[in-house]
Amino acid sequence: MMSSNAPSTALERYTAQVLLGDVWQRPLLSMRDRAIVTMAVLIARNQSTQLPPYLERALDHGVRPSEISGLIAHLAFYSGWANALAAEDVARPIFARRGIDAGEPAPAALLPLDESAEQRRHAIVERKFGAVAPGLVQLTSDVIFRDLWRQPALSVRDRCLVTIGSVIATAQTAQLAFYLNRAMDNGVSRAELSEVMTQVAFYSGWSSVYTALAVMKEVFEGRPD
Amino acid sequence: MMSSNAPSTALERYTAQVLLGDVWQRPLLSMRDRAIVTMAVLIARNQSTQLPPYLERALDHGVRPSEISGLIAHLAFYSGWANALAAEDVARPIFARRGIDAGEPAPAALLPLDESAEQRRHAIVERKFGAVAPGLVQLTSDVIFRDLWRQPALSVRDRCLVTIGSVIATAQTAQLAFYLNRAMDNGVSRAELSEVMTQVAFYSGWSSVYTALAVMKEVFEGRPD
Amino acid sequence: MMSSNAPSTALERYTAQVLLGDVWQRPLLSMRDRAIVTMAVLIARNQSTQLPPYLERALDHGVRPSEISGLIAHLAFYSGWANALAAEDVARPIFARRGIDAGEPAPAALLPLDESAEQRRHAIVERKFGAVAPGLVQLTSDVIFRDLWRQPALSVRDRCLVTIGSVIATAQTAQLAFYLNRAMDNGVSRAELSEVMTQVAFYSGWSSVYTALAVMKEVFEGRPD
Repeated sequence: MMSSNAPSTALERYTAQVLLGDVWQRPLLSMRDRAIVTMAVLIARNQSTQLPPYLERALDHGVRPSEISGLIAHLAFYSGWANALAAEDVARPIFARRGIDAGEPAPAALLPLDESAEQRRHAIVERKFGAVAPGLVQLTSDVIFRDLWRQPALSVRDRCLVTIGSVIATAQTAQLAFYLNRAMDNGVSRAELSEVMTQVAFYSGWSSVYTALAVMKEVFEGRPD
Repeated sequence: MMSSNAPSTALERYTAQVLLGDVWQRPLLSMRDRAIVTMAVLIARNQSTQLPPYLERALDHGVRPSEISGLIAHLAFYSGWANALAAEDVARPIFARRGIDAGEPAPAALLPLDESAEQRRHAIVERKFGAVAPGLVQLTSDVIFRDLWRQPALSVRDRCLVTIGSVIATAQTAQLAFYLNRAMDNGVSRAELSEVMTQVAFYSGWSSVYTALAVMKEVFEGRPD
Repeated sequence: MMSSNAPSTALERYTAQVLLGDVWQRPLLSMRDRAIVTMAVLIARNQSTQLPPYLERALDHGVRPSEISGLIAHLAFYSGWANALAAEDVARPIFARRGIDAGEPAPAALLPLDESAEQRRHAIVERKFGAVAPGLVQLTSDVIFRDLWRQPALSVRDRCLVTIGSVIATAQTAQLAFYLNRAMDNGVSRAELSEVMTQVAFYSGWSSVYTALAVMKEVFEGRPD
């Protein structure tokens, strides 16, 4: 992930000793989860030229190609269509070189929906924004929560990690609490979320994560678990 | 706007059925306005590699080349000089291939200025920031509001749409209310703004637009019209 | 920094008359500092394709190659690893063409640390976030403030300018006050910071800087100097 003959050997040293030699090796978060979060940050920031080594690393550490495709489709909605299309352009030749057939698996049933939870979520958003943006509120229910999040290509837990990475990377802190809670509701531990922040700091920048920590602190303090 | 053999057929399906097949076709906002808003978002996020099909689409739906040039110059100020220069590099070969002479039209008079409104705006900003940033406050008056916004290449109404797209795409929500009000003062309806949010959601990401909705709600509630 | 035959001659005119002909020439901030701030903004926004002329300009105006390498390594932490690696890819051929050997200088001592100030900083952050993100809080002390900021390649004063540019460019206003104060503690004047805002406005966009002005105003009002 680094070039030789780089002009900044300080950066080389930090990369070797801190980022690759320490952070990526920490057991608090699996290599697989680190790869997923890192891809999410890079795609959300549209850094497609830097994406290939991380996409290869993800495949090497057990992220399935269908999960990567699911992650890209998820980020189309959360970080913009152009980001997802650019990520696909990166994924396609890597998949091809590895002989991966990335066609959609045989039609699979959507993941089950917690109907009453979704109705509560929709009611809250409808009450807040139904009058000012009825079209978007309806799409959010029909396409995002009743379809995208239920696609079997990527687990709900992993979608939470992806969304958290994307929300921090695009400076949308106001949306973060919802997805941190959702992550914890889907089995992500406090220790894992804490280490997600460390991982994201290196790829989205320290400043973005310190802004996010204030939100995470409130979320942690507001939960009994 | 999609590639064949894409690894994520979920993304292909959303593109075909939701984005192109539904959202872009909705009559609440004209195809022309959708194209303008989408170009603004892509340029503000510096996604020049994804810009060409949208620039072609804009020309196909009646956006004039001089309007595109005006939009790019507008975004130099609102989203950064480098973004505008990158957008020009995309526009130039497309204009050339279509035989468009993009030289500036014969010098045209600036659009009229509402002198008392501009004096009120300047006085408010001068009172807030004149002491800490006198140079920038003066440039904002001289170059942004007494020159850029009055360039005849792009209407004030369209500049509002462009600025709103750029402000949301760069997570600058604190600046949004001013431009939503300005848009409504220049004839953009609530229904159109609402649909601008839907359009922007697909290109700047859902999270950025939900942050913006809270501002739009306040603006709508604060106006009699 | 502009192309001929650009489709938008309004942009050409603003570039020649306002940006290059006026702003860059203003004596309130040195050409060298303008170059440093501009590189920081472009790297923080990952605009590597637009970076070369500004990197050349920096070298032409006395920014040392080792300072550029230090700036890039600094931004790895503040704006994300991928941004720094992309910037290195831009710097390498420019350094090579100029016959610059960018290898790290012989190991130099770290800059001195104000131990009690760092302990106060760490204690505040530890109290706020130590429980929710212990790993990141420790890295922030060990790697950011006890190592990165003390690397002799770039002065603390210049690191402040770089960080301010990056924080504004990535919409992380919540982190800005700390670095504005740090800049003033390290000899940057109010007039210089004010002009940094003007410079950043052209490269990160007007909206981002107006959000930042509100923070700068508070910082200025809260200091006796």
